[in-house]
Parts: sequence; structure tokens; C-alpha cells
Amino acid sequence: MRAPIEPFHAIGISRLAHQLKEDGRSIIHMEFGQPSTGAPTAAIARSHDVLDSDGLGYWESPALRERIARHYADGYGVSVEPDRIVLTCGASPALVLALLSAFEPGDRVALARPGYVAYRNTLKALRMEPVEIACGPEDRFQLTAAHLAALDPAPKGVIIASPANPTGTVIGAAELEKIAAVCRARGIRIVSDEIYHGLSYVGPCRSMLEFEPSALIVNSFSKYFSMVGWRLGWLLAPRDLIADARAYVGNLFLTAPSLSQHAGLIAMDCRDELEGHVEVYRRNRALLLDALPGLGLREIAPPDGAFYIYASVAHLTDDSLEFCKQLLRDTGVATASGVDFDPVEGRRFIRISFAVSTPEVEEALRRMTPWFAARTVV
Amino acid sequence: MRAPIEPFHAIGISRLAHQLKEDGRSIIHMEFGQPSTGAPTAAIARSHDVLDSDGLGYWESPALRERIARHYADGYGVSVEPDRIVLTCGASPALVLALLSAFEPGDRVALARPGYVAYRNTLKALRMEPVEIACGPEDRFQLTAAHLAALDPAPKGVIIASPANPTGTVIGAAELEKIAAVCRARGIRIVSDEIYHGLSYVGPCRSMLEFEPSALIVNSFSKYFSMVGWRLGWLLAPRDLIADARAYVGNLFLTAPSLSQHAGLIAMDCRDELEGHVEVYRRNRALLLDALPGLGLREIAPPDGAFYIYASVAHLTDDSLEFCKQLLRDTGVATASGVDFDPVEGRRFIRISFAVSTPEVEEALRRMTPWFAARTVV
Repeated sequence: MRAPIEPFHAIGISRLAHQLKEDGRSIIHMEFGQPSTGAPTAAIARSHDVLDSDGLGYWESPALRERIARHYADGYGVSVEPDRIVLTCGASPALVLALLSAFEPGDRVALARPGYVAYRNTLKALRMEPVEIACGPEDRFQLTAAHLAALDPAPKGVIIASPANPTGTVIGAAELEKIAAVCRARGIRIVSDEIYHGLSYVGPCRSMLEFEPSALIVNSFSKYFSMVGWRLGWLLAPRDLIADARAYVGNLFLTAPSLSQHAGLIAMDCRDELEGHVEVYRRNRALLLDALPGLGLREIAPPDGAFYIYASVAHLTDDSLEFCKQLLRDTGVATASGVDFDPVEGRRFIRISFAVSTPEVEEALRRMTPWFAARTVV
Repeated sequence: MRAPIEPFHAIGISRLAHQLKEDGRSIIHMEFGQPSTGAPTAAIARSHDVLDSDGLGYWESPALRERIARHYADGYGVSVEPDRIVLTCGASPALVLALLSAFEPGDRVALARPGYVAYRNTLKALRMEPVEIACGPEDRFQLTAAHLAALDPAPKGVIIASPANPTGTVIGAAELEKIAAVCRARGIRIVSDEIYHGLSYVGPCRSMLEFEPSALIVNSFSKYFSMVGWRLGWLLAPRDLIADARAYVGNLFLTAPSLSQHAGLIAMDCRDELEGHVEVYRRNRALLLDALPGLGLREIAPPDGAFYIYASVAHLTDDSLEFCKQLLRDTGVATASGVDFDPVEGRRFIRISFAVSTPEVEEALRRMTPWFAARTVV
């Protein structure tokens, strides 16, 4: 390893799940954060038309950038110039662009632990220094303004994620405002990953942009818009960094998939269909929150948004990766180990994605109930 | 600018071209290296089927990796295990993966000048040190084994591009073998950009893999396969670097567009249609090589492959960027300035892409002939 980058262990679990499936086993995929639904119907219809009428060259859709800008006006009440939006092949390269544009090698960037593994690893790949802040139940597993005020010296930047992966916890408006104030006072640049916006069960998500205009915002069509494999996302950069972001995207990535841009523009107006998916997640979440305590899973991060349950299995194991594999082998239910999200405490947690159908959640609970019962000391 | 990354000036020329088009002008786009043709018919047909039958989640097509591996067996006589192939959103992120996997910040990496601007800029973005080797007509504008033997100290790596952008020059088998031998002897890791393979007018292109199994190979569906906006490429990594490359792709990029992978698999068997495009390029190239000397453009890099003419305009200007803009304003013919490819000598060169239709090349020549005649002192 040139850079100390760890593999994403959920991929290994998924590989095992696919092997078991080839052996004829029935598998329920709750290990990855991807909707089991496809793109909105109208977006697919538009794709058929475009396939037959467009050569699909290098392209950045002006209409999509304008539509995304309008999304910030309509959804958050923030005015954004379309040229501050850079379209990317998903949120992952948008994060790379954000970090390259805002920070330099050696810069310290704060982030919550647990958190999405790629934050830590992308920072390391770019030779920036992740400053992981342990966040537990007392913080609702989220960074706070107090954490950022206490860091000495102040980091150069911070990555905020709300709703968060793997916990689903949301940072409320009051705390976002406090975080913005501390960062302004201490010269900390904010990168806000808003990829799970739209997926909230506690009211609308607020954008960091409402509180801090100099923040860089990362988002994607892979979650709410249910267009995972279309590889479309965006970076919204502040005026002072947009030239850098454009120079980087032109050299490191070039354009986003053209067909996906056409489809994404249509998807943004398919609210009814997309809200239907959110209703399924809401039902799935309620089923799990109702049933999991009966399985002995009582320590759960507040699942305000996204489509994850992050639950402690500390009473059952201190090796949640092996635990997830055994659960998969025994029941066909694939989940992710906390080690992907927290190198310190993750061995005592699992993440369950409920971005599947409701019958799948019901079946998963039927299979897991006796399995957990056999392991739980009463 | 955090990193000393320059903008890609051809984008500015393209923007001017689109403005002129909106004003009602007839524009011929010869500024970018993209086929004006679309994906093969059968690949588009397959895409229609997949759109209606597949949810398009995160996915790396095993069949496509196997098909690409077979491409190396069939086309180059080299046996490659499919798991050494990493599918990416085009060649650009494949290059990022290659550099991150093979080198560390501070490492010196040699490359030819002129060359594709993103090599230099991506190296700089990753804080590696580009060692630019001036290559002129005496070297056919290409790196040689002699160049690499003479570098003191030896660089950690080298980027080879054959056929090259902007020149189209090809490195022959004998020289590739010599380069491989020098690199082996001096411990220089080779990254070979083979994105223009398949587009050669001097016989089949040879892969660096035939001569050096430890080389990293970058390729894409954007040129020969005419699938630019589908954003699909690959990195072929040697056994000792594949785990690193997979860890980086899982954190920095995730998967390539799913629909494009389905379509790309079909495209690889559409040789007849794709060879038809090459025949058009061959005709276009002949037309230009025949006519350009009459325009006073007599110093041209040997256009063995790709779809570029790199021509000296030193007798007319020492500001080829402004020269290209004036040519565009006056004639509607968009070309690229050499400054994108060579920060030192590029002000005296222009790059003409002939990946357009033959009637467009004919019309471009009709418009350029009097324009150049008016500027050339007899």
C-alpha cells in the first residue's frame, strides 16, 4: 500500500453474498447503501429518446446546472449561480474535487467517527490529514460546534455529513448554524456532504449553504433520485474556488455521463415517484425500529434520515466483520460491519441498509429473529 | 490556485465557437478530440433493452472485464487475468488511479512535451513532479529510450502515449522494447496511455504490455469505440499494484456507469462499424496532409495515428491561442492552440482534430485556404 487506504469490507461481504446466491441461496442485500429501485419512469423514457437522437459527446448540461441551482432556491431558499455547479460522475469524484480545491497536502481536516470510509481514505490519498473526532450516543454520533471549537489548533477544514452514513443521524438547523459560526470564527472551511438529502424522517434537511455561503456542497443522484449506476453527482463550489474546481475537473475527470445528465434533469421533476420510495423507506425503518429491540439490538443511532440502522452488537461480539459474515452464511441476510465506518469502535457495530422492498425487510426480520435469539443471553 | 493547474484553453475556444453558433454562424468543430459519430448501433440497441430490464445499481461487469482481457489476448498476444482490469468513468480517472497506485507524492515522473495537458496537471494535483522532456521533429515528438537513459537521476516513473495527443505520432515496436529495457534496468515504472489504440494509419499499435508486464495500461471507450459521453474506460494494473488500485477506486470513484458497461461489451464486437469510422479518419487525414502544405503548413508532426494534425504556425504567429480564436472568428473553423499541450513551444503550434465528417474537412479547407493565403508571405 502506497497510501494507508483500507479496502471497503462491505464489498467482501457482498462478494460472499453473490457466491451464496450462485449456490442457490436466497439473499437479502442490506449491505450496501443503494436503492433497489431504478431511475424514475420518465427519466428512463427520456433516456430512450436521447439514445436515438444524440451522439453523446463530452457535455455539461447547462439546463441541468440551472435546474440544480433552482433546487437550492426552491428547497433551501438560497440563490446559487448555475456556473458554481460542477457536474461529476457521482458524489465520490465531487468530494475529490472539493478537497483538492479547498485544501492542500498536509492540511488537517476534521470529520466524525463513525463516518463514511471514503472521507478518511480520500483525505489520506490526497495526503491531507484526517482529524477523526469520536462521536458516540452522547453526540448523536455527529460532529458538534463544541467539538470544532475545542480542536487545538483549528483544523483547516471539516467534512459535515447530514444525514450521515452509517448512522442516518441529522444535524438540526440550530447546530448547523453554530457549526457555521465556529468555522467562520476559526477559519475552518466546510465541505458538506448532502448526498442523503431528501431522505429524512424528521422533517426537511437543511443545507449547510443556508448558514455558510463559503461551504462546498457535495451531492448526487444516487440516493434520493434512485440513479445509482448512472454515476451523476455535483459539486457546488463557492465563488472563490470555482475556477480551481473547474481546472481540476477538466484535467482529472472531464465530463459526467451525457445520457445521465439528460435523465437526471427529468428525474428532478419526478417528485411523486421519488416520494413513493421515501414512503417505502419510512415503512421499512418503522418495521426495523419496532422489531430490532426484540432481537436484542437496543443501542441504535437515531435514524433520522438516509436508509441505515447503525446498531451496537457489543453484547454479542467484538468482531462485527466475522459476525456479519456468519449472519449472512446462516440466514442469507447481508449487512455491513461497523469496521468500514469506524476503525476504533466499529468492531462492535453493524449497519443495516433498509433501501430494499418492505417484503424483504419482513423476510430479513423473520430470518434474523431466531438467529439473534439463539445468541442472546436472556 | 492551490495547485498550479492551468485551464484547458480548448474549452475556451469551444465556448467561443458555441457563442458564434448561437449568433447564426456555421461552425466546424476541430478543437476537441472526440469522434462526431455516436456509439455503435448494436451498443445503442443493447442500451434500450437494458434500460427497460435492469435497475442499474453499483456494478462492475465481470463479462466486460473478461472481454477486455480477451482483447489483450486477441489484439496483442498477451494473457491478462480479468481481475487486473479496473473499470472506470473514462481514461481520466484511470490515469489518476494509475498514478496513485504506482507513485508517491514527490516522485519524479517523466513525460514528453508536447503531450496531453492532463498528464502534467494530474501529476501536479497529486503532488508528483512532472519531468518534461522536450521532444521535437528530431524525435518525432516522442520520448525515446535514449531520453530515459540520459535522465539523471532516474525518474520513478514515465508516462508513454502512443499514438500521442496532440501529435498522433506512434512509437514503433523496436523503440517500445528499448524503452521497456531501459525502464527495467533503471527501475522506472511505466504508465502507458493507449487511448488512441485502434486509430493507426501505419499498421497496428503495439501495447507496452507486450514488452513490459509491470506496466500500467490506461484505455477508454471514448476514441476508437466512439463512446465519448458514456464515460467508460479502464486501468490494467500489474499484479503487485492491483490491490492498491482497487482500494483507490472503491474510495475515490466507485463504479463506472452501468449502462455504459452493458453497451461497451457489445461495442467491442462491432468492428465493422468502428473500422468504418477509421476509414473516414484515414480519408480526412489524407485530405489534410494533401492540402495543408498549400496553406503554408509544412512542418507537421508525423500523424501516424489518433485523429490529430499538430502543425507549426511559427511563420505566422507566436500566439497560437489568439491565432486559433481569430481563425475561428473569421472562418468558423475551431482548432486547438498548442499552448494546451506544450507550455514552452506551444505558442507556435496548432492542433487540428479530424474526427469529423469528410465533408466537414473539405469545407474547413475551403474556408481556411484563403484565410491562410492572406497571411502567408510568399
